[in-house]
Amino acid sequence: AFQDVNHMVVFGCGFFFAFLRRFEFSSIGLNLLIVVLGVQCSVLTEALFLFLLHRPNEAGLQRITKAIVSVTAVVISTGAVLGKANPVQLILMTVVEMIVFHLNRWLHNTFLQVPDNITMMHVHLFGAYFGLAACSHFSEPSPGSEKNRSTPKSDLFSMLGTVFLWVFWPSFNSVLAEVEKSKAVYNTYFALAASAGTAFVLSALTTREGKFHMAHIHSAILAGGVAVGNAAPSIEYPWIAMILGLHASVITILGSYCLQRCFNPPLRIHDTSGVHFTFGLPAVLGALAQVVLLVIQNWTGLPRLDYLVWFHIGALCLSINVALISGFITGLILNFKLFKNIPASKYFEDQLYWEFPHLAVGF
Amino acid sequence: AFQDVNHMVVFGCGFFFAFLRRFEFSSIGLNLLIVVLGVQCSVLTEALFLFLLHRPNEAGLQRITKAIVSVTAVVISTGAVLGKANPVQLILMTVVEMIVFHLNRWLHNTFLQVPDNITMMHVHLFGAYFGLAACSHFSEPSPGSEKNRSTPKSDLFSMLGTVFLWVFWPSFNSVLAEVEKSKAVYNTYFALAASAGTAFVLSALTTREGKFHMAHIHSAILAGGVAVGNAAPSIEYPWIAMILGLHASVITILGSYCLQRCFNPPLRIHDTSGVHFTFGLPAVLGALAQVVLLVIQNWTGLPRLDYLVWFHIGALCLSINVALISGFITGLILNFKLFKNIPASKYFEDQLYWEFPHLAVGF
Amino acid sequence: AFQDVNHMVVFGCGFFFAFLRRFEFSSIGLNLLIVVLGVQCSVLTEALFLFLLHRPNEAGLQRITKAIVSVTAVVISTGAVLGKANPVQLILMTVVEMIVFHLNRWLHNTFLQVPDNITMMHVHLFGAYFGLAACSHFSEPSPGSEKNRSTPKSDLFSMLGTVFLWVFWPSFNSVLAEVEKSKAVYNTYFALAASAGTAFVLSALTTREGKFHMAHIHSAILAGGVAVGNAAPSIEYPWIAMILGLHASVITILGSYCLQRCFNPPLRIHDTSGVHFTFGLPAVLGALAQVVLLVIQNWTGLPRLDYLVWFHIGALCLSINVALISGFITGLILNFKLFKNIPASKYFEDQLYWEFPHLAVGF
Repeated sequence: AFQDVNHMVVFGCGFFFAFLRRFEFSSIGLNLLIVVLGVQCSVLTEALFLFLLHRPNEAGLQRITKAIVSVTAVVISTGAVLGKANPVQLILMTVVEMIVFHLNRWLHNTFLQVPDNITMMHVHLFGAYFGLAACSHFSEPSPGSEKNRSTPKSDLFSMLGTVFLWVFWPSFNSVLAEVEKSKAVYNTYFALAASAGTAFVLSALTTREGKFHMAHIHSAILAGGVAVGNAAPSIEYPWIAMILGLHASVITILGSYCLQRCFNPPLRIHDTSGVHFTFGLPAVLGALAQVVLLVIQNWTGLPRLDYLVWFHIGALCLSINVALISGFITGLILNFKLFKNIPASKYFEDQLYWEFPHLAVGF
Repeated sequence: AFQDVNHMVVFGCGFFFAFLRRFEFSSIGLNLLIVVLGVQCSVLTEALFLFLLHRPNEAGLQRITKAIVSVTAVVISTGAVLGKANPVQLILMTVVEMIVFHLNRWLHNTFLQVPDNITMMHVHLFGAYFGLAACSHFSEPSPGSEKNRSTPKSDLFSMLGTVFLWVFWPSFNSVLAEVEKSKAVYNTYFALAASAGTAFVLSALTTREGKFHMAHIHSAILAGGVAVGNAAPSIEYPWIAMILGLHASVITILGSYCLQRCFNPPLRIHDTSGVHFTFGLPAVLGALAQVVLLVIQNWTGLPRLDYLVWFHIGALCLSINVALISGFITGLILNFKLFKNIPASKYFEDQLYWEFPHLAVGF
Repeated sequence: AFQDVNHMVVFGCGFFFAFLRRFEFSSIGLNLLIVVLGVQCSVLTEALFLFLLHRPNEAGLQRITKAIVSVTAVVISTGAVLGKANPVQLILMTVVEMIVFHLNRWLHNTFLQVPDNITMMHVHLFGAYFGLAACSHFSEPSPGSEKNRSTPKSDLFSMLGTVFLWVFWPSFNSVLAEVEKSKAVYNTYFALAASAGTAFVLSALTTREGKFHMAHIHSAILAGGVAVGNAAPSIEYPWIAMILGLHASVITILGSYCLQRCFNPPLRIHDTSGVHFTFGLPAVLGALAQVVLLVIQNWTGLPRLDYLVWFHIGALCLSINVALISGFITGLILNFKLFKNIPASKYFEDQLYWEFPHLAVGF
């Protein structure tokens, strides 16, 4: 299981973000760099917190697994600034985000008494909003530029990464569940299946002539897995997971239309990989769905139902706020002159970071 | 183990069929669509049968695993009509084939008392002959067309899928075995190794100048795994598995010559991916080999040996017949005008199903 | 675990060596051929040795796993002669190397009483020096040739293989450990993380303008896994593994400069994939590091410490010597006229071994 998650984050995410025509080397290479730095940083931060709080350490493998799950937040944030931040900025962002993420978990644990597995599953949420806030400081690429488009070849590599993520998502959702692991796998699989089906149907319905659009498939088939993340071990019937997956997929595709047209332009946000609608919105849906499920399950049994509802919604809001504020401050720091911010005309260029000894003989 | 099989079917098969120069997007994307629909359809159909027969349901994970194994039949059938059927036709075919496949299993179970694990291993057989019968209704592509050829790049992606299938085949053959799992893995590995070696040798012997031919390697290295599918858990010595793998590989390469020249043209069958010789023939060989092995093992011990032989051969023939007849009828239905059959001149075109926003800037 | 190692050797190594612009088919195809032949040969050789020594056979799955680990030696050796040896030469080399490798293990076992798991972990060492000695007999490619360069596309496929190897390395190092499996995974992960981080930093420091160089990343991120191979199950603190990984990465990148400029030209060695610094040097470092760790751990406890040190260094030297001598002799035999050695002008050409039916329509 540890291997599956490792495989998914390093390989799947690397190729998932490899859709830019001139930025494939950096997407894959820098993703690996961020993961290894993030894991080391996450293990250190958590060890420090446990040391300060006088709690016992966990076994080695469990610690790395947790660190890899946490690092997903950084990988998602990177997606928002992909091609716009240079390696030094990315490294700084990784370190800051890992520390803030564990600080956020500590806040939840201490002040709200939220159990650890719920805060760990806020990774998608945290990563998406942190990245979004950070990328608001980077200048927008020139609109006529063709460098931030994809080619059929790069789309194919990206599809490879997406299929990988799709296949390993059940492992990701079940790896931290202490009980009901097989239930988590089962429900995640059905949610993913429902959202993949919906993605194809919606894509055909919303484009001209009923054709599929690769970008829709790309982002919407994973939405179900993200949405079901929190609730996976506790959903009793697979059809609930499927309904959740269906809604997640709808929200992602509708979100990709609304956000790119109405929300991003006035706020001057340029979200390269669309992490807001791919990971952010389905994660919010998933957190809300878990509240609804809890209410339905404990309708009569629990005396203080309203407390339970506010407690979950409070945890959700706290995570989003911490992510937005810390992301905003990080974005501000990253744009200091010290870090040699790259100009908008040189965005999305592999050649800025990689030597191309083969360039002379034709790209 | 569930993850391995899932990985193999979604990822391996998707890229295995990605060898057409203009049809890579559809091969991978539609394969994913078919798998998710097929799994849901298979789970539903089996639940319905179990409900009608008043049998208890199995655990969740076991049910999905079975459904993924069944869906292999649909994926193989799709290989035969690859590039010729449109998405609506593929979806209809998926639904019909999954229902007929489970009906076939129920027939075997009720009338022949064949145990469940044998009928599940008829997936390759069923898929290949269903697809073959269905594709006989589609018109042949124009002979001068270059669209159904491969390029070195698409061959490379296809090789990626083949290697994936090769690596995960031992898991596929052992996942449904209730006992002797490690024996099934062991024997499958040796059968695959033998057929891969034979494939290279035969390919060098049959082509001019002793060069290898990618299409031979592509189809023949998997033949051993298909052939050993039925007998894997019961073979006692690895050399038996290796002999089986060797023969499977020989049959596949000889079959690819004979079928493409003598058998397909008069019947007007155009089998895009060659599923007949890649999956059909080795599966028939495997089923016959199991009968021979049973006869040898029980030569003196069993009083009614002839019954055992006819029982297995009967099961084999029943599966092939059900597949051919239902495939023929499905092919007939798929060619109704209602489904907007695509003309032969537009076969194998990604642009018919996918939006290409990057087309303007050069394919 | 068996699947992971199988996956890593067949898939990871195949794509790892796919960086030559005109040699991708052969890299992947011939790698598969070599693995399947090597595994069969290794199982047979080991069975013969066990039969001659009157020892009991192990369980089936354990035998194949061992055979796959041994075959890594052949795969690494192939990297040194990649594109220069024809398939017949490669097959002969596989057979000879597998026999010599098991002979080497038997020598260690009988005369030095070295336990089996240490000699198995000499695979990288043995493979690298065997390949290096063998390739010294092949003539160098003409210096102006562009065929042994990479293209961005082939680099991408190669990166795919490298990431695969990186992800599965912890499984590889732990698969043969009988105790402390999770510790081996844990330490290998940290060593790999440290060497990946170091590789990026060093690559940026050593190239002009602080850009990354793909070839550095390619070889140095794996160095940590190779170096920690021997000691992985016995390292107590992760920071020791990280220091080892850091040094391995430094040695690999410095080695790639020194060897390619000072060492290879006078000896007329042309090491296509740089197996000497990618696998050879880190493995030597790992073996020496294990001695140092043993000395530190048993500083006071063991009476005959000097014996322990010489015993390990002796085992290391014996492996290197056997590899160099047998590799040299094998290289001599491979260059007999009988095997139709290909001329230097036709090195690195896929078209020599593969039929290209699609050539007419443009490469």
